[in-house]
Amino acid sequence: MSHLPENIQRTIEEFSKLPGIGTKSAERLTFYLLRKRDQDVREFGDALTGLKQGINYCQICSNLCTKDICGICQNESRNKNVICVVEEMLDLIAMEKASDFKGVFHVLHGVISPVEGVGPDELRIAELISRVKAGDIEEIILALNPSMEGEATAAYIVRNLEGQDVKITRLARGIPVGGDLEYADTQTLRQAMQNRSQY
Amino acid sequence: MSHLPENIQRTIEEFSKLPGIGTKSAERLTFYLLRKRDQDVREFGDALTGLKQGINYCQICSNLCTKDICGICQNESRNKNVICVVEEMLDLIAMEKASDFKGVFHVLHGVISPVEGVGPDELRIAELISRVKAGDIEEIILALNPSMEGEATAAYIVRNLEGQDVKITRLARGIPVGGDLEYADTQTLRQAMQNRSQY
Repeated sequence: MSHLPENIQRTIEEFSKLPGIGTKSAERLTFYLLRKRDQDVREFGDALTGLKQGINYCQICSNLCTKDICGICQNESRNKNVICVVEEMLDLIAMEKASDFKGVFHVLHGVISPVEGVGPDELRIAELISRVKAGDIEEIILALNPSMEGEATAAYIVRNLEGQDVKITRLARGIPVGGDLEYADTQTLRQAMQNRSQY
Repeated sequence: MSHLPENIQRTIEEFSKLPGIGTKSAERLTFYLLRKRDQDVREFGDALTGLKQGINYCQICSNLCTKDICGICQNESRNKNVICVVEEMLDLIAMEKASDFKGVFHVLHGVISPVEGVGPDELRIAELISRVKAGDIEEIILALNPSMEGEATAAYIVRNLEGQDVKITRLARGIPVGGDLEYADTQTLRQAMQNRSQY
């Protein structure tokens, strides 16, 4: 597309680097922005340019924040003795949106995956163990994805917390709300049956 | 999501303003970028900030370009006597990718749509009429979408070119390549039958 102006071409290329956005979508987004006011487009550009400025990991829970300690860990009303362990930031956001969970988090920033060459040392597991060993933690809720990697990571954490005086739990498995029994896989059905609850 | 750093929140909001990108996707894209190198993210930001700089309409065909006349209109080897009329830039790009069309274009930047309050004056139709009246145009190919608005716009152009010595054609209607007869609508089938060609 050599006849497209260089700035347009460049923006299309940048968009198409994003996951799930192919060339067609990248073109559509770029021409959408070209129809927007100059200021709106510049604001988007500025947001991206400044995205990573001053962002670092919370020293306690590895949540992304602009201070040393994140807002959740600083919040007086949250129960510091219950830690919900999540794989990544998006899971933390989902948990915060969904639940009235009043404990704190620990973000691993990944899962153990031999296929992708991710071992325990690449994750924030040591930090989690240290938090528990520092004492006063009552419960660790492993809110990891029910995938092979999630299970392996959970098993690794459980093994490394052996001998610690802490309750370790995990999220319930079952039929998702709005889901359909007919389409549920056998593993999910089996676990939903095992963990059935009284009406 | 008040506990997310302001820069992250802002980028999520900017992404979710884009068509077809909801909050979940915007979050996913933002956290994807947060895992990228600082420089990569800045380059994306710079591309957007500079996107609209120096972009204007070709004085002949209304293609977007950085000069007064676009590369296609300047190209000596293109036939200036055949004009392919398209609704928008994405259509021009699609035509350029697909065909070995050697004529030039005219971009209307929209279609007549009473529902959305777009009349002929909002489009580059007058410029097209002027091009034809200036003489030497042999053929106008109306490559508009086969939608109500596309048809209305085509009809309006045809009416305004009455009495001009120019051939007006439109793209063939028929079964798309890779398409399935079974799923084709009756209008398409009817037109495909009418315009059938000899083997």
